[in-house]
Amino acid sequence: MAKFYGIGTGPGDPKLLTVGAVEVLGKLDILYAPQSKKGGDSLALSIVKEYLKDDLEIKERHFPMVKDVDIKSKAWDEISSEIVKDVEKGNEVGFITLGDPMIYSTYIYLFERLRGKIETVTIPGISSFSNIASKENYPLVVDDEELIIVPCNMDMSDVKEAIKNYSSVVLMKVYKNFGEIYEFLEEQKLLKNALMVVNSSHEDEIVYRDLGEVNRSEKLSYFSTIIINKNFNTVD
Amino acid sequence: MAKFYGIGTGPGDPKLLTVGAVEVLGKLDILYAPQSKKGGDSLALSIVKEYLKDDLEIKERHFPMVKDVDIKSKAWDEISSEIVKDVEKGNEVGFITLGDPMIYSTYIYLFERLRGKIETVTIPGISSFSNIASKENYPLVVDDEELIIVPCNMDMSDVKEAIKNYSSVVLMKVYKNFGEIYEFLEEQKLLKNALMVVNSSHEDEIVYRDLGEVNRSEKLSYFSTIIINKNFNTVD
Repeated sequence: MAKFYGIGTGPGDPKLLTVGAVEVLGKLDILYAPQSKKGGDSLALSIVKEYLKDDLEIKERHFPMVKDVDIKSKAWDEISSEIVKDVEKGNEVGFITLGDPMIYSTYIYLFERLRGKIETVTIPGISSFSNIASKENYPLVVDDEELIIVPCNMDMSDVKEAIKNYSSVVLMKVYKNFGEIYEFLEEQKLLKNALMVVNSSHEDEIVYRDLGEVNRSEKLSYFSTIIINKNFNTVD
Repeated sequence: MAKFYGIGTGPGDPKLLTVGAVEVLGKLDILYAPQSKKGGDSLALSIVKEYLKDDLEIKERHFPMVKDVDIKSKAWDEISSEIVKDVEKGNEVGFITLGDPMIYSTYIYLFERLRGKIETVTIPGISSFSNIASKENYPLVVDDEELIIVPCNMDMSDVKEAIKNYSSVVLMKVYKNFGEIYEFLEEQKLLKNALMVVNSSHEDEIVYRDLGEVNRSEKLSYFSTIIINKNFNTVD
């Protein structure tokens, strides 16, 4: 029986795909790839393209990045209906998503709509924060410490609370409130324990081991992540 | 110049290795593999064995799992000195570790001792919690929610605090305090939002979508993980 596969591509480098993901990608009949802009390139598709078979049908679909839940829901409903039809016709169908499918991915909303209708297999991927820590040789967490992952589009008071209370903190999407985050890290004397990577694992990746070097008048990329570890300095 | 590679193997299934990890494993001259018991099997080694070249030298080394930091430090010092010598002789040397090297791994202690002495490349791996979420189709976290990862060998009051304050919680090493954790989840009416996996991604894996089914008089495995998501029920 045909199945639907939700596949994590990792953050960007095709070598971060798992062996299992590559195997599944190579046997698909139809692959859905998300576009953040209508008609724009799919970042996830660029990661996997070397592993796809020649006669694969690729369906790039636009996932609106807006606040309005109704607009987003409409897109998820339409795409999931299309996926169900494709699987019911006997096609092996895949959907690719950046990073890990179960950590802050739009895949979760698709999956909720497919649940119980078609058989779904989810394949994990390397998260951007895990890749940053390894690539920059900057440990995330040891022993009996907690690790907290905080998307910074939430309330800044909660972000500050997390930074104060935990020794290992990942701050995602820092582009919006970078100024305020920087000031708080400075106040907490944590600048030497904070590493920022912009566009992790892409051609235009920038690594800041000293946050003071960031040009604060320029707009940061959506894919900007800070890792804080109070027990490790970012520079020797 | 020869390098040292710290390689995350993922939680158990060899298909969870990344393409990059497989490439590096295939070119090593010497591989260090951790044993938790002296002379015992290395779990990490069993995961990677199909990807190793025939003439590879394998050095299984014992990492004591004790509280005494002096005993552990002595082992880390000895093993890291040996690694430095092997690399300085021109060998490509690897070390394998379960899950992700920068998340709760002994690798971090080795790495601290190698820093500045030999060139070190760290290759990320799939974490057990990420694999459990995908394999069980149980989403970890969406949107502007925080995700907290809690090793339950810490103070139980901190564990309870995390469960109360966050909607997405990973509890690792629940074997020690499972009784108390179960009672707290029951009290907080979270039993339907808690999924437990014992020995994730191994032959003897057990999945509990209903924690009430756990035999509480039996000793749980060290590798027992609970995922809590207050926005998703574990059963439909």
